[in-house]
Amino acid sequence: MFVYSRTPYYYETDQMKIVHHSNYIRWFEEARIAYFDNIGYDFVKQERFGIVCPVLSVQAEYRNMIRFGDKIQIATRLTKYNGVRYEFSYLVKHAGTGELCCTGTSSHCLLDPEGRIIKIRTESPGTHELLCKALAMDASA
Amino acid sequence: MFVYSRTPYYYETDQMKIVHHSNYIRWFEEARIAYFDNIGYDFVKQERFGIVCPVLSVQAEYRNMIRFGDKIQIATRLTKYNGVRYEFSYLVKHAGTGELCCTGTSSHCLLDPEGRIIKIRTESPGTHELLCKALAMDASA
Amino acid sequence: MFVYSRTPYYYETDQMKIVHHSNYIRWFEEARIAYFDNIGYDFVKQERFGIVCPVLSVQAEYRNMIRFGDKIQIATRLTKYNGVRYEFSYLVKHAGTGELCCTGTSSHCLLDPEGRIIKIRTESPGTHELLCKALAMDASA
Amino acid sequence: MFVYSRTPYYYETDQMKIVHHSNYIRWFEEARIAYFDNIGYDFVKQERFGIVCPVLSVQAEYRNMIRFGDKIQIATRLTKYNGVRYEFSYLVKHAGTGELCCTGTSSHCLLDPEGRIIKIRTESPGTHELLCKALAMDASA
Repeated sequence: MFVYSRTPYYYETDQMKIVHHSNYIRWFEEARIAYFDNIGYDFVKQERFGIVCPVLSVQAEYRNMIRFGDKIQIATRLTKYNGVRYEFSYLVKHAGTGELCCTGTSSHCLLDPEGRIIKIRTESPGTHELLCKALAMDASA
Repeated sequence: MFVYSRTPYYYETDQMKIVHHSNYIRWFEEARIAYFDNIGYDFVKQERFGIVCPVLSVQAEYRNMIRFGDKIQIATRLTKYNGVRYEFSYLVKHAGTGELCCTGTSSHCLLDPEGRIIKIRTESPGTHELLCKALAMDASA
Repeated sequence: MFVYSRTPYYYETDQMKIVHHSNYIRWFEEARIAYFDNIGYDFVKQERFGIVCPVLSVQAEYRNMIRFGDKIQIATRLTKYNGVRYEFSYLVKHAGTGELCCTGTSSHCLLDPEGRIIKIRTESPGTHELLCKALAMDASA
Repeated sequence: MFVYSRTPYYYETDQMKIVHHSNYIRWFEEARIAYFDNIGYDFVKQERFGIVCPVLSVQAEYRNMIRFGDKIQIATRLTKYNGVRYEFSYLVKHAGTGELCCTGTSSHCLLDPEGRIIKIRTESPGTHELLCKALAMDASA
């Protein structure tokens, strides 16, 4: 589990005077990449080899609004991994009160430079090991 | 059912050379508001009365990538409405080939100026009628 | 001169209940690409050859606010071109009243796949001719 | 002078594989608000009183590209203030090398809840003092 901290930017608000719901999907990405960074998975380097990581699905439930001036924390967990596809979960909370604002998930795979799905287990054993270890740690947390 | 047409903007692409997944969530909003406009539901006027329409949940599955230069169509349907909460579905397709790129849903309610959930059926009968009619038409389409 | 029409999207507003100023910079890009499309300059195809078109500078003066529900028009002109670098000007107006909301400019060049500045006049004579013709037409308009 | 640090987000890149130029304008806003926070100017509280701070003009020159994975720093200075209107300058640099990527400016005023320009000097003396002190410090830095 990795806790990603963030304060909303002014331009992320909309005329309801709350953070626009689409920005949470972007925050999930920020949190996911920070999570990877934290376990030593080098996302930037990976892309230099032409490997990309598309989003297969994303989902969010909005419970409480977030405003400019708030401080938020996103508890980010790797919840599934089957050797090819992996899934993250996100809990977005107000930093001060712990009030839950949003829950979400996203799923992903890796594509090689030809756009073919990578069998991570066999074709990228280093990444496989990192993901297995992270999955085990998040399950026990 | 309303078909919303769009060409991606350059700034909506990311370094994978595809439209960033978060923009589909924004397109859903565009499609939804165009849908409302099409059935005579005046979203702009509604907000002048202090009534807002937050997103309760959103979900998307990405199947095929969309690139700058593509033309897309979003088949937008009102699929559920219970007098308080309503739900939309979206099918994002390549305009030329009809290839399905993304499916999604979103759910919504209305809040009055005090942030209280509006019982649309009783408190906003005009809107209620519009939504019921749209729901019936989309079910039969 | 090309007039690009647009209605602001909900997610382009901020908590001042106006379109966030950064979005005008994005609209300039939309208007510029629509302008090119209109004179038969194929931007999408160009990028397939690895040629990109970075922004060298951008500038905007904001005079009147734009709100969700407004209709706007962006009068877009090619104002300078010296064989290497070209410049656009933008006048953003309310479609109904003609009230001026924003004036802006942007300047650009072309880079080849190695990141080298392209001497358009000699290295891309077809594009050179298109730009010269557009410049002459906009000067006389 | 305040140095605002940032790493670009994945979704801020475009298909040129660089940060899209419009995001620098958003970063200027982030840097400006962090600057205000640093001198004890409470932007969040101010908006609760219905006072807003529109952007009157913005300008940027792009010199070197910024990529996902880079670390950047934005040296932010208050450069002008005449009792009503103030101006900021921004130098965006690569954190490691100090290479200059972008220079920019923006100018602003304050509006009261009726949309009237606030004479900061006389109508908001606390803010006036803060801005004068910041201006003097930045001039001597």
